[in-house]
Amino acid sequence: MEKIGFIGLGNMGAPLAERLLKKYQLIIYDLDENNIKYFTDKGALACSTPAKLASQTSRVFLCLPTSTIVEKVVNGDDGLVKTAKKGTYIIDMTTGEPEITRKISNALMQEGINFIDAPVSGGPKGANQGNIAIMVGGTKEAFDLALPLLKIMGKNIFHAGELGSGNGAKICNNMSLGITMIAASESLMLAKRLNIDIKKVHEIMKNASGNSWPISVYPPLPDLIEGTPSNNNYRPGFSAGMMNKDLKLAYECAKSVSADTPLGKAALEIYEKFCKDGNDDKDFSAISKVIGGDAWDYPIE
Amino acid sequence: MEKIGFIGLGNMGAPLAERLLKKYQLIIYDLDENNIKYFTDKGALACSTPAKLASQTSRVFLCLPTSTIVEKVVNGDDGLVKTAKKGTYIIDMTTGEPEITRKISNALMQEGINFIDAPVSGGPKGANQGNIAIMVGGTKEAFDLALPLLKIMGKNIFHAGELGSGNGAKICNNMSLGITMIAASESLMLAKRLNIDIKKVHEIMKNASGNSWPISVYPPLPDLIEGTPSNNNYRPGFSAGMMNKDLKLAYECAKSVSADTPLGKAALEIYEKFCKDGNDDKDFSAISKVIGGDAWDYPIE
Repeated sequence: MEKIGFIGLGNMGAPLAERLLKKYQLIIYDLDENNIKYFTDKGALACSTPAKLASQTSRVFLCLPTSTIVEKVVNGDDGLVKTAKKGTYIIDMTTGEPEITRKISNALMQEGINFIDAPVSGGPKGANQGNIAIMVGGTKEAFDLALPLLKIMGKNIFHAGELGSGNGAKICNNMSLGITMIAASESLMLAKRLNIDIKKVHEIMKNASGNSWPISVYPPLPDLIEGTPSNNNYRPGFSAGMMNKDLKLAYECAKSVSADTPLGKAALEIYEKFCKDGNDDKDFSAISKVIGGDAWDYPIE
Repeated sequence: MEKIGFIGLGNMGAPLAERLLKKYQLIIYDLDENNIKYFTDKGALACSTPAKLASQTSRVFLCLPTSTIVEKVVNGDDGLVKTAKKGTYIIDMTTGEPEITRKISNALMQEGINFIDAPVSGGPKGANQGNIAIMVGGTKEAFDLALPLLKIMGKNIFHAGELGSGNGAKICNNMSLGITMIAASESLMLAKRLNIDIKKVHEIMKNASGNSWPISVYPPLPDLIEGTPSNNNYRPGFSAGMMNKDLKLAYECAKSVSADTPLGKAALEIYEKFCKDGNDDKDFSAISKVIGGDAWDYPIE
């Protein structure tokens, strides 16, 4: 059975890797012993460094918290580049920075190694069910080569454009998500304060022009849609810290091309304060708690 | 054939009234001669005052710009109340203020006249196709009585709750819409500046967590979905002036119940400036023009 490498088995990486595990011999690298044990128990082979992993396969997936960590895993002391053969494909599913993606890729190209960005959208639950969207940046040829493996992991797979475009599209998507999650919270909490049944307002907005992904799939208040973090004491899901990171990325990205993102910036400030107040690890939909103020007495752990 | 009254044949009122016209003898009142002629040509009967209209029917629809105008039409010198019989139903489809709605209704109740709020969502195009959502505030009995007529006009008809709840739900919905329209503009324009194909980013967001009604139905940039105002030089549709009014309503409403709506307030400021700069009559999706700055050279008339 062909070996596939996977580095980064966190909230998002784990369910993605698990889908590959069903079809391929997985070789893995992660810093967390529990993550490693979970996968080796299911037949994956653990490597002690990225370099050792790259020596055994020509296809490596990364799903890491930031572009800076990706750089370290690729170019660090025991990085992938130390042993990766010519023709190796590195498919980076991290939500990263388009500029760093291009920098890493251009350097690897000199060694005959391909590096493309393929960040995902849809959350761990979607990843579990194979329902996520994947947005790929790279040549059409690289996209076509990655496609069969990506199809095991996701449903809607897009070739966003040249290298870095996957990250760019993801940043645009998640900036919209951060804003609309706050918008959904503001609207539902206003309804609550106006003494209108939240279930009715939610149902109305879902079927009218106030609709958005947070309203229709991932509402920030409990008892509206089953299986959401708001029904599970706001355990993530997708953490407020990660949303804060993505909004910061969007803001930096926008600044670098002189784009105007007033609500993106306002959303960043709201999430920044939320995280500073100690809520990094809550699901990002818990932002409704600060929007709600004292009008709403649902628990948050 | 039973007579039904309709007052306010503007952008939204006209397509709603036209659907009723197919099943009932319509009697109408409007300030605009062209609006009147359009309907009398199709067999409607025009009245010179609201009072004359109310003397001929027991069911009257209103679809007016503001609650203040509704008050004038109901309680003014030649207002409905002058001639309306006991048992008359006034169904107000205006996006109005919950408090004024309750004030008008409570006074009418003394006269044995029923007044309920039933604002709509979905725009003139949706109204034309009978696809709009209608959110009704009033007793269950009043809702059930209005339902058969509302079903001629809309698809998703909700009993939002007691009197004023229709307006309240509409305000919550439209505050979300105003925010998400700006969010969609920011995301698509950021993509444009990052040199990513806007059509691809739009397609990605539509299928991912960045989705919203403006993305999936009513995008603020041209060449993404046919038949939208952005493909028609931003002729409304739903004007920036109306959105500005709704966001102002939401802000006042939120203040009155001490609700926190930071992005609703930020969106209001953006639309206020847009209108002050002379764009009241543009479709509200033209807000992408100021978000886009000089990155986008599509025409706006």
